[in-house]
Amino acid sequence: MTWLETLKTETPEEGFELAIKLSRMAVKYTQPDPKIRDELRQKYERDADSLTAASHVVAIHFQTIAQANGFWK
Amino acid sequence: MTWLETLKTETPEEGFELAIKLSRMAVKYTQPDPKIRDELRQKYERDADSLTAASHVVAIHFQTIAQANGFWK
Amino acid sequence: MTWLETLKTETPEEGFELAIKLSRMAVKYTQPDPKIRDELRQKYERDADSLTAASHVVAIHFQTIAQANGFWK
Amino acid sequence: MTWLETLKTETPEEGFELAIKLSRMAVKYTQPDPKIRDELRQKYERDADSLTAASHVVAIHFQTIAQANGFWK
Amino acid sequence: MTWLETLKTETPEEGFELAIKLSRMAVKYTQPDPKIRDELRQKYERDADSLTAASHVVAIHFQTIAQANGFWK
Amino acid sequence: MTWLETLKTETPEEGFELAIKLSRMAVKYTQPDPKIRDELRQKYERDADSLTAASHVVAIHFQTIAQANGFWK
Repeated sequence: MTWLETLKTETPEEGFELAIKLSRMAVKYTQPDPKIRDELRQKYERDADSLTAASHVVAIHFQTIAQANGFWK
Repeated sequence: MTWLETLKTETPEEGFELAIKLSRMAVKYTQPDPKIRDELRQKYERDADSLTAASHVVAIHFQTIAQANGFWK
Repeated sequence: MTWLETLKTETPEEGFELAIKLSRMAVKYTQPDPKIRDELRQKYERDADSLTAASHVVAIHFQTIAQANGFWK
Repeated sequence: MTWLETLKTETPEEGFELAIKLSRMAVKYTQPDPKIRDELRQKYERDADSLTAASHVVAIHFQTIAQANGFWK
Repeated sequence: MTWLETLKTETPEEGFELAIKLSRMAVKYTQPDPKIRDELRQKYERDADSLTAASHVVAIHFQTIAQANGFWK
Repeated sequence: MTWLETLKTETPEEGFELAIKLSRMAVKYTQPDPKIRDELRQKYERDADSLTAASHVVAIHFQTIAQANGFWK
């Protein structure tokens, strides 16, 4: 099943949401068990540093996606 | 509700503030509960390393936004 | 034995999987023993921050690969 | 009050100092209280890893500023 | 003695190996004593997070080297 | 006193050494006391993760410098 057909999005906001998806997919490839990911999520969504680290990964993917979309100019 | 219509800003300073917004929005997507985010904020805004980590994410978004604006040249 | 002939991929998704491969290969070069890597994996795939850190490395390689493929435009 | 009018600087060294300013401004936006920032500074300026993390953020901003200035060529 | 004459490599794989070399050379400049580096290596090559951090540095150098080689297109 | 006149270097190796200089200068701006920096150095040059973090900053500056030099092509 294909989950990533294109880096093109209609708007910057959709690009941002795609960036979030990409950052989560990398985790999914490493930890495929949804139950374990759920347990981990309980903890990490209440840890400021974990949230910042997640936001960091999103920022890098968003940069890639913004470039792919010519910055939606 | 749309929160990100464009990466274009009038000035570098507005671009910097947009970078801050983007870094916070990624946290918001992961932890949507404003009460929990407020609690986390109490702690992390008094931790030098947490603040540096947040500044790091802003730096990446600012790079993307600067590129999108042709560095405001 | 060659393991990286090209950065070109057919699709963004294959590019993403190549990014995962690159991030793992760097670990393999530093820790060539598969038994030790397996032991480490047990722990790190159940640690949210470790998973985010791994996702971070994938994001950088994906950026490189996306550039190499003209963002699959 | 405007604090960032342009990314242009006369020299690479001024660009470097602007990068330092940008990295500090992101902290200031998150922790606006100068007294708390001073207390945090006491600790973090004597911690090697904190200093490296700060240097890291400067490196990213410096990359952006160098690009904005055509690398001062 | 020269250790880095060019960023050009014949293949992506050689580029990846050069990226590993660059990431190690920066460590060597900071800690020139091979005996201490060996001791540190004992520990860090058995720590998943240390390995991921090392892989992270390789990813950045690989991006630079890939750009220098026109992505080996 | 000027310490950074240009990002241009004759060779990639000199560029690498400039990258090391830049990463140290950012630390120097934050912690100007050479005695404290020396004490910190004692500890951090024997810590594998600190060395990797330092190598990380060098990698980013090296990317900037490589771009500034057209990758020494």
